Amino acid sequence: MSWDELTGSLDFSTLRTHYADGTLRPADVIRAVYRRIAARGDDHVWIHLVPEDEALARAAAVEATSDRSAALYGLPCGIKDNIDVPGLPSTNAFPPSRRIAGSTGPAVQRLLDAGAIVIGKTNMDQFGVGLVGVRTPYGVARNAFDAAFVPGGSSAGSGVAVGAGLVSFALGNDAAGSGRVPAAFNNVVGIKPTPGLVSNTAVVGGGTAKTLETISVFALTTDDGMHVLRQIAGYDPDDLFSKSEARFCDLAPRPAPARFRFAVPRPRDLLFFGDHDAARLYEAAIARLGSIGGTAVEVDYGVFMETQRLLYEAPFLAERSASVAPIIQGHEHALHPATRTILESAGEWTAVETYRAIHRLAELTRDARRLLVDVDAFVVPSTPTIYRIAEVEAEPILLNARLGTYTNFVNLMGMCGIATPSGFRGDGLPQGITVLGMPFQETRVAAISAAHHRALGGRLGATGAAVR
Amino acid sequence: MSWDELTGSLDFSTLRTHYADGTLRPADVIRAVYRRIAARGDDHVWIHLVPEDEALARAAAVEATSDRSAALYGLPCGIKDNIDVPGLPSTNAFPPSRRIAGSTGPAVQRLLDAGAIVIGKTNMDQFGVGLVGVRTPYGVARNAFDAAFVPGGSSAGSGVAVGAGLVSFALGNDAAGSGRVPAAFNNVVGIKPTPGLVSNTAVVGGGTAKTLETISVFALTTDDGMHVLRQIAGYDPDDLFSKSEARFCDLAPRPAPARFRFAVPRPRDLLFFGDHDAARLYEAAIARLGSIGGTAVEVDYGVFMETQRLLYEAPFLAERSASVAPIIQGHEHALHPATRTILESAGEWTAVETYRAIHRLAELTRDARRLLVDVDAFVVPSTPTIYRIAEVEAEPILLNARLGTYTNFVNLMGMCGIATPSGFRGDGLPQGITVLGMPFQETRVAAISAAHHRALGGRLGATGAAVR
Repeated sequence: MSWDELTGSLDFSTLRTHYADGTLRPADVIRAVYRRIAARGDDHVWIHLVPEDEALARAAAVEATSDRSAALYGLPCGIKDNIDVPGLPSTNAFPPSRRIAGSTGPAVQRLLDAGAIVIGKTNMDQFGVGLVGVRTPYGVARNAFDAAFVPGGSSAGSGVAVGAGLVSFALGNDAAGSGRVPAAFNNVVGIKPTPGLVSNTAVVGGGTAKTLETISVFALTTDDGMHVLRQIAGYDPDDLFSKSEARFCDLAPRPAPARFRFAVPRPRDLLFFGDHDAARLYEAAIARLGSIGGTAVEVDYGVFMETQRLLYEAPFLAERSASVAPIIQGHEHALHPATRTILESAGEWTAVETYRAIHRLAELTRDARRLLVDVDAFVVPSTPTIYRIAEVEAEPILLNARLGTYTNFVNLMGMCGIATPSGFRGDGLPQGITVLGMPFQETRVAAISAAHHRALGGRLGATGAAVR
Repeated sequence: MSWDELTGSLDFSTLRTHYADGTLRPADVIRAVYRRIAARGDDHVWIHLVPEDEALARAAAVEATSDRSAALYGLPCGIKDNIDVPGLPSTNAFPPSRRIAGSTGPAVQRLLDAGAIVIGKTNMDQFGVGLVGVRTPYGVARNAFDAAFVPGGSSAGSGVAVGAGLVSFALGNDAAGSGRVPAAFNNVVGIKPTPGLVSNTAVVGGGTAKTLETISVFALTTDDGMHVLRQIAGYDPDDLFSKSEARFCDLAPRPAPARFRFAVPRPRDLLFFGDHDAARLYEAAIARLGSIGGTAVEVDYGVFMETQRLLYEAPFLAERSASVAPIIQGHEHALHPATRTILESAGEWTAVETYRAIHRLAELTRDARRLLVDVDAFVVPSTPTIYRIAEVEAEPILLNARLGTYTNFVNLMGMCGIATPSGFRGDGLPQGITVLGMPFQETRVAAISAAHHRALGGRLGATGAAVR
C-alpha cells in the first residue's frame, strides 16, 4: 500500500495501516499536511495555523510517548477557534477577545492524550452565529469544491479542512446546524452528538448558546467520526449542562441493521427554494436507504418547522446575547454587521415570552417524540440548497435562515444527528442528508449513516480516495 | 389490636394490619374519616369534599374489585386542588378556573388503581404561589396545632389533612417549598421528589412553574410517603419535563445506614429571624443525627442563599406569569392581592436577563454538586420559623419570602428532599428539618429521614399515635 504525500488519504484506517506496518510515521503525515496546506494557498481555513516545526515536535513527542495503538495516534486534526487548545490562541472570530488558552476541557484533553496532533484553529462565523461561514473578519474559508460558494458555517474551517484532505478530523460545535451544514457543503460527515454528551468546558466561555450547543466532529467517514466521539464523550461535573445520561450512553459500534424504519417529512412539507438538484438528491437518498433495508414513514413536518422558527424568531436568541454581551462591550466596532443585527434583535424579548417559548418548545418536543417513537431515525436534507458567497452577502439574514430549515430544531429538541454526503448537484456542489435520532441514540444513527455512505460510494470529501 | 373511630391512626401499617386481620374494612375507615372531618368543623381544609356516600361507594368498589394486597388498598387520601381527579372539580384556588376534571395523569391514576380512596380536593395558596396557605379565597386551612398560626403552603390543606389525622396521605406539589413547609407546620413528613421523577400531567395545565415543580407526598411517616412515591413515580412521555432518569431510578427501600455523612450550613449562615426555639430544635436535630451514626460536615451556604434569592428576585418568576396569564385574563378581580403583586413583578424582566439567570443558576448548581459530592445528604431547617396568620396578613410578601430560606433553591438545583418533624417550640408549634439529596437520591435521603424520625419519637402529626 503506497501513500502519496499530496494525495494520500488521511482517513483513519489508511493512516493506521501505514503506521502499523511502518510505511509511515506521524512526522511524515504532518509534513504532507503542511505541503497540502501550502499548495492550497491563502484559503482562510485557519485563524491560527500551528507552525510546522511545532507540529513536527508534537509528532515526535507522540511517537516517543504514545503507543501506536493509542486511539488517535498521529492523526492530524483541526479545532474550531472557539474551542481552547492549551498554548494556542482562541478568538471566536472576534479579534478583540483573542487570548492564548492556558487550559482546556476533557473533550480536547482526551484527544491530545490519545495521540492526535493539532494543526491549527479553524475559521468560523463570529461567535458561532451563522450557517454560512462568511461572517468572519478572517476571510471566507474556501469551499473544498468551488470558491464561489459558501463553505457552510459556523464551523466553516473545520468542514473545509476535512473535505480538502488537510486533516483526518476536526472539531466544530453546533447549536443550530454549525456542525452539519459545513459537512454537507464539503462532502464530509458531521457528527452532532446529543447536547450534554460531550463536555463544553473546552469551549470558550462554556459556549454562547450554552443550553443548546455541543461540540461536534467532522470526519471523512461515519466510523472515523464515531471513533473520535467515543474519545471525547462523557459526563463532566464541571460542565454546566452536562447530562447524567452521558455516564451510561453506550457508544460501542453496531453493525448496519438488516431492516430499519426511518421517518421522512411529507413531500409537500419539503423546501428546496427552487433547487431541483437538491430535491432530486434527497429523493435519491431516500430510495438508497430503501435499497439497504430501510422503510420510509412519512411524518408531519409542522412540529419541526414550528420549532425551527422558534430558534431565530423567539427569545432563544437572547441566550447568545446574554453570553457575548460582556465580551463585546467596548469592542462593538469589531462585530460583523450580520452578527450585530442578530444579537440586537434579542433585546426585544421579555422573560414572560421566554418562558412561553420554553413551554411551547417542550410541547413540540413531546409531539416529536410521539411522531418518532416507532422509527430508528428521522432522515432530512442537511440543507435545502447551497448559496454563492455573493448571494449571501446581498441577503445575509434571509439566506442564512433558509439554510437552517432542517437543522435549527435538532438541539432545541435535544436530539442527535449525523450529516452525511448524498451526492452532487449538476454544478459539482455537494449536498447531504442528516440522519437524526432521539437523545443518546448516536450508535443507531451512526449505523444507518455509515451504511448509506457506503451505498452512495464516490469519493471522500474533495479528495481522490474512494468511499469503502 | 383495637382501633378507635375518632382516634385510631391512619398510618399505613395500622390500617394494613386491620384490613389483613379483618377487624376493619375500608368502609369503616371512610366513615371514621367523615366523623373526624365533621368533628373538626369548618376548618377550610377542603376546597371540595367528596360527599360521604360517594366515598363509601368508592370504598365498596375497592373492596369488590381490589385485592387486599393492592399497594394502597383502602387508604383515604387528599389531593391538592391543582391536581386533577376524574369527576372532581379543580380550582387551583382561583374560582373562575373551576372545572370538573374529565381525566388525569398517571401519578393520580396509579393511586386510584392501587386502591386509594380520595376524600377531597385540598385548599392551597392560589396557583401554588406561596408558602403560607393564606393566599386563598376558600379560607385559611386551620393549622393542626394552633388556628392562630399559618398552616404553611402552598399545599396547605394536604399538610393539615395528614397532620390532623383526616387521611392516610395526601398529594401536594412543590416548586419553591410547597410540599415541605406545610409538612413542617403540621408535624408530618413531606416527600419532595426530584423534579421529573413523577409525571406532572395530572397537574392542571401541567403546572405553573412547569420547569421546576413536582408532585409531592404528605404522610405520617417517611416509609408511608415513600410507599406512595413508588406508586406514582415513573417516566411519562406525555409530560413536558419528565426526566429519562425516571426510567431507571431505584426506589426500593434501604435500611438506615450505620454510618453516614451529612452536610449542614455553617452556623453563621443560619437564619432563624429571632426564633430561638427553632434554632435550638435544629441544633438538637443535628445532634440527634450524630447519635444515630451521622457525621456533620459544615458547608458554605452562600451558594444556596444566592440560588434561593434567584427564585423570587430574578426572571424565574416569569414562568408562573407565562403559565397563568391566559387563565386570569378577564378575571383579574379574583386574584389574591399578594398573588397579583408577585405575578406583576415578573413583567419587568427581559429575555437576556432570563438567560443570564439560567446560566448563573447552572454555575451555582455545579458549585453545589462540588460541595455535596462527598456527603449522603444535606440537612437544613425546613423553615426558619413559623408565623401567625395576622403577622403574614400584615407583611404578606416579606414573611412569605423568609419561609423559603431553606426551600427555594432545591428544585432550581434539581435536588430531592424530605421534610421531617424535629419537635416542638415552647408554644407547642412544630418545626422540622429537611433532608436533601442530589437528583434521584430519594432512597438515600429516605433512610436518613426515617431513622431521624424514629430517634425523635413523639406523636405522628397532631394525632395520638406514637412514632414507631
